[in-house]
Amino acid sequence: MKKFMDEDFLLENDTAKHLYFDYSAPLPIIDYHCHIDARQIYEDVRFDNICDLWLGGRMADGGCAGDHYKWRLMRANGTGEEFVTGNGDKAGRFKEFAKAVSLCAGNPMYHWCHLELQRYFGITDPLGEDSAKSVMERCNALLADSPELSARGIIRSSNVEFIGTTDDPADSLIWHEKLAKEEGLTFTVRPSFRPDKAVNIAKSDFREYIGKLADCVGRKSLDTVRDVTDALTERLEFFAAHGCVAADHGLDYIPFRLITESECDEIFCKRMRGEKISEEEADGYATYVLLSLARQYKRLGIVMEIHYSCLRNVNERMYGTLGADSGYDTIASSRGTGNLARLLSELDRTRELPKTVIFSLDPSDNEPIDTLIGCFQSDDIPGKIQHGPAWWFNDNRDGIERQLRSLANNGILGNFIGMLTDSRSLLSYTRHEYFRKILCNMLGSWVERGEYPDDEKMLRRITEGISYYNAKRYFGL
Amino acid sequence: MKKFMDEDFLLENDTAKHLYFDYSAPLPIIDYHCHIDARQIYEDVRFDNICDLWLGGRMADGGCAGDHYKWRLMRANGTGEEFVTGNGDKAGRFKEFAKAVSLCAGNPMYHWCHLELQRYFGITDPLGEDSAKSVMERCNALLADSPELSARGIIRSSNVEFIGTTDDPADSLIWHEKLAKEEGLTFTVRPSFRPDKAVNIAKSDFREYIGKLADCVGRKSLDTVRDVTDALTERLEFFAAHGCVAADHGLDYIPFRLITESECDEIFCKRMRGEKISEEEADGYATYVLLSLARQYKRLGIVMEIHYSCLRNVNERMYGTLGADSGYDTIASSRGTGNLARLLSELDRTRELPKTVIFSLDPSDNEPIDTLIGCFQSDDIPGKIQHGPAWWFNDNRDGIERQLRSLANNGILGNFIGMLTDSRSLLSYTRHEYFRKILCNMLGSWVERGEYPDDEKMLRRITEGISYYNAKRYFGL
Amino acid sequence: MKKFMDEDFLLENDTAKHLYFDYSAPLPIIDYHCHIDARQIYEDVRFDNICDLWLGGRMADGGCAGDHYKWRLMRANGTGEEFVTGNGDKAGRFKEFAKAVSLCAGNPMYHWCHLELQRYFGITDPLGEDSAKSVMERCNALLADSPELSARGIIRSSNVEFIGTTDDPADSLIWHEKLAKEEGLTFTVRPSFRPDKAVNIAKSDFREYIGKLADCVGRKSLDTVRDVTDALTERLEFFAAHGCVAADHGLDYIPFRLITESECDEIFCKRMRGEKISEEEADGYATYVLLSLARQYKRLGIVMEIHYSCLRNVNERMYGTLGADSGYDTIASSRGTGNLARLLSELDRTRELPKTVIFSLDPSDNEPIDTLIGCFQSDDIPGKIQHGPAWWFNDNRDGIERQLRSLANNGILGNFIGMLTDSRSLLSYTRHEYFRKILCNMLGSWVERGEYPDDEKMLRRITEGISYYNAKRYFGL
Repeated sequence: MKKFMDEDFLLENDTAKHLYFDYSAPLPIIDYHCHIDARQIYEDVRFDNICDLWLGGRMADGGCAGDHYKWRLMRANGTGEEFVTGNGDKAGRFKEFAKAVSLCAGNPMYHWCHLELQRYFGITDPLGEDSAKSVMERCNALLADSPELSARGIIRSSNVEFIGTTDDPADSLIWHEKLAKEEGLTFTVRPSFRPDKAVNIAKSDFREYIGKLADCVGRKSLDTVRDVTDALTERLEFFAAHGCVAADHGLDYIPFRLITESECDEIFCKRMRGEKISEEEADGYATYVLLSLARQYKRLGIVMEIHYSCLRNVNERMYGTLGADSGYDTIASSRGTGNLARLLSELDRTRELPKTVIFSLDPSDNEPIDTLIGCFQSDDIPGKIQHGPAWWFNDNRDGIERQLRSLANNGILGNFIGMLTDSRSLLSYTRHEYFRKILCNMLGSWVERGEYPDDEKMLRRITEGISYYNAKRYFGL
Repeated sequence: MKKFMDEDFLLENDTAKHLYFDYSAPLPIIDYHCHIDARQIYEDVRFDNICDLWLGGRMADGGCAGDHYKWRLMRANGTGEEFVTGNGDKAGRFKEFAKAVSLCAGNPMYHWCHLELQRYFGITDPLGEDSAKSVMERCNALLADSPELSARGIIRSSNVEFIGTTDDPADSLIWHEKLAKEEGLTFTVRPSFRPDKAVNIAKSDFREYIGKLADCVGRKSLDTVRDVTDALTERLEFFAAHGCVAADHGLDYIPFRLITESECDEIFCKRMRGEKISEEEADGYATYVLLSLARQYKRLGIVMEIHYSCLRNVNERMYGTLGADSGYDTIASSRGTGNLARLLSELDRTRELPKTVIFSLDPSDNEPIDTLIGCFQSDDIPGKIQHGPAWWFNDNRDGIERQLRSLANNGILGNFIGMLTDSRSLLSYTRHEYFRKILCNMLGSWVERGEYPDDEKMLRRITEGISYYNAKRYFGL
Repeated sequence: MKKFMDEDFLLENDTAKHLYFDYSAPLPIIDYHCHIDARQIYEDVRFDNICDLWLGGRMADGGCAGDHYKWRLMRANGTGEEFVTGNGDKAGRFKEFAKAVSLCAGNPMYHWCHLELQRYFGITDPLGEDSAKSVMERCNALLADSPELSARGIIRSSNVEFIGTTDDPADSLIWHEKLAKEEGLTFTVRPSFRPDKAVNIAKSDFREYIGKLADCVGRKSLDTVRDVTDALTERLEFFAAHGCVAADHGLDYIPFRLITESECDEIFCKRMRGEKISEEEADGYATYVLLSLARQYKRLGIVMEIHYSCLRNVNERMYGTLGADSGYDTIASSRGTGNLARLLSELDRTRELPKTVIFSLDPSDNEPIDTLIGCFQSDDIPGKIQHGPAWWFNDNRDGIERQLRSLANNGILGNFIGMLTDSRSLLSYTRHEYFRKILCNMLGSWVERGEYPDDEKMLRRITEGISYYNAKRYFGL
């Protein structure tokens, strides 16, 4: 029997261990998409309690901030909301979480938590009801003292080279600017452009957001869709000037309805007058703006990321209480990859397709996506169109293996740009270890079974490429 | 090489064997959803032929009764219908089945049959054309003699504690009443409420059924949808008074169209006048009645089970010949979990969401369901919303493992209520052994690979919970 | 560590090796569906360059011919189109391909290429940038000399017994006729009927094709849908007279809309006048013609194959440049198996359902298909309705295993008709080895784990059946 989560965790053969420890582990992390707040990094914040760090909680405005993966598990264990996101005492909340997680055999949260305890706090005890108090005390003692447990300390000790945050086009990027001027930083923090609020025309806050965008580019108002795309382009150039290498779109599904500028104008104006628009109209507008932005990404060499197939805020009662991002989202059965194909083709037709990374929340999209991206590759760069790593609910051992195997079966695994955290938490860098070990284990098992040659040079190239170099090349870092 | 289906069948490591034999195997069975006839149990029926017991056959009314899983395999082997459901001689029918099953490497029927032969008849020979005669004779000899091979004998020797049958709201529950009055029974038999005929407004027998329901509550007719829901509520309370703990809905797909009571009345009356209604109207009616019933389930503490994503009776010719449940159903590619999310949200909005167990016949719904249930958990009870075990066509080794892994990846495996037979056959209790061994093997493999701690207390709790205690708690037994 | 792709490649236990080497490997190949040109075989063509043989290239008409699987990988590696399908020098093109393939750990192309190098050229070196030149030179030397490397030589040395080509109804079958008259051939080449162009009424070349079909049956024009189905029937009988045993339909999705002959006539005439028809009209016409043809297949004992769930030519720009079949197709998320069920039921209703083999490009259709075929089996023949082997993008180790396991879980694996190449390349017969080894490995692992008896007779029957005898029986060879 292997020891519980020792250094060989997930590594089941000698080749896997060799690939991981000799090639993958030493390489820095390029975390090209996450939700960390640049201000936290600039201010080098510290937490004084593992409960705050892991569970977050209710905010002044009534919403909540923190790790909704963990909240979901607590709710699934019957924990009352006052201990999940509420004002239950911290020891009590942490104990409730420990109870829940100890029942989570097979859940990635079990592994992530223990990896974080091991790597950042040196704690190897399994977490559970009995150990909760002791684990909490030891964590809190280290949080109070250790220089490696500030925001920057964690990033440094995790060997992170690059952080791509996620930012609204109207963001001032003031914290990114400050960070860029800092001397002696061992890592780079760059903004990513996330214009969802300008695309989601049907959302209730759309008009307000267009006003904010107008302010941001020094105009009284944006009166046409051309005004909107011009404003977005101006902001995108501002982001690019701050080192932005990626833009990200979060979509429930991929829209595709080609309309003319004047048709789009009509829809936009209708919506700005406060009238209700149809789903078709919303799709037409979204398609128009997406295509317009994608062409700018191509011009500026910025990577387009698309995340889709999600049903958000499905629990109406809890959405009313806690707001968005509180753990009430779920996988949508996708409307298929047909629209995605049309979108990419429309851009490729005029040679304006940017580098693109596609993520679906529906794991049965793996094979359709991996065959689709093979239709839009080109000699711009190896692996120009990428299937992003297993995302959100799929970011577990099975999900990661399925994405890797589907990619390997249908394309060139060796050109994959690899892992990101997509996380709000600074401790999530351990997920890169998780991913890299699964990758090396898979490669190693192929070699040991005689399915790929024991060719040191190629194995090194593939392992190091997926761990680090491919992303570096892809994002031009 | 392991011996063929010996006691360690499906158990591939030492931890798995320990968990199964020391914790799981000794626990009684709670079979919370099956299709056994309470009368069979009350009358303690015996079979005098394994052919009747396994293959059933044609009934006086031209339909047929028996195990359609087995019929399907015979047909797939080119067996003529007179040997499948017809009046072929019993030895011939049994031999045809044995021939078919011997070609079924990898089919769960192969394992189920051999488990039944081993556990109930002490026969360890592989079943096939050559052994068919001898197996049949030995089985029949035991069926004639053994006290353990009556209905009650089988239940007793299978260590069954609870049986939840499936019953129409108009059922008198007379056999359940009689069983409740019996002394010395080692098990409990309770009805479950299955009001499909009152929901399926588009079916040809709807009007007739509404008449039957009226009779049952002592009324001349049911004239409004309020009359229908009142009648159902009255019957549900009658069921509850007879110890009913669960209601079950079999749906081709999940409908969701909110309509008012008066709109629903109009649809109901239109249908009762014999007019054709549209699919939208049928969805509106079904949604209305489902919501109404669910609120009653919540009030009475009854668990709601939903089975969906099925295409029934797809072979028109054979449906005309043999009627329903004769082996002509198939997996539907689901219309997605969106409507399910809306249904649960609508109930949760007013805090009227009952405990709910969700089953889809489409295995690609595993992940969408497991993320969806995480959006509706609460502190009513740990694991309030459950993803039911692999159902029907998915009730095989791969299907069971996939359901368990998806559940583990996206929720708390330790709170799972575990297996049921969903069977018409009294010998199917061996499927609990099948499930438990797969479960223990999975848990054991995680421990042996260092992915979950070798923590006796927690492993015991998880194993015993899923095998027995979670269902006991969930159904309030 | 196992040696790289030695004779035990993919065989992971002793039973698997026994089944493969003693039962499966010696049996001839029945390649019941491929895209090889009968003329190539008749003329016994030779290639003088592995680059032409593997990569093909641009043709005089501007289109291209060759292996689009390989082209896709080169494009995914950033290779410029002049090296993919263009006129780059052969050594350069081959080196670019070798570079791409060496990064393709886990891709079936990696295995297929190395199997071809081993079996036909005796080369065991891994292919990559460094070895490309030497591999190419050795291959070319053998291509120039070896009698086993002509078209017929390859077929002979591959132990092929039967080849089913894919042919348009208007084809003269002249090369098939010539081959049939040849003496001393060790294999049979038969046409298959592929009437897609007569079904795809919405395609731009439909009218032109109907003209061609009219010519072919010696008529000035086809003026009604009856004329079309009569012409097709005449051609089908012509094919049958040339030994045709199968017809094949390539469909983006399964249409099903029942219309009358006169409605169908109206649609046909509208289209023939050059008017645009709706999607519903196209579905109605396709359904009508499909049903009509299927009834003829039944009458003539011809097997119907249906391939569906494909999005073709999704890259508009490249389709404009290179035309069809150039590597720009992808998996469609299927519209489900509902229409397929209706189609089969409509035929079965009048007992006119022919033997049918179903292939979907969407791997999440595996289970729905395997449960669906169980609804249409009959005593015509064991396994009358078949789920075809993993097709196109699924023709990899994972895809083959998934198809086999789904089939085993839901039907009778022992009646499966097994593998085909579906290939344009004569070297693809190694895919039968690939498939057979995966099959034997799966069967062997079940035996070694005690899940199926170590019963020599049954294992032999199942292994030999799937490798050879089932297809022979099914196609009446």
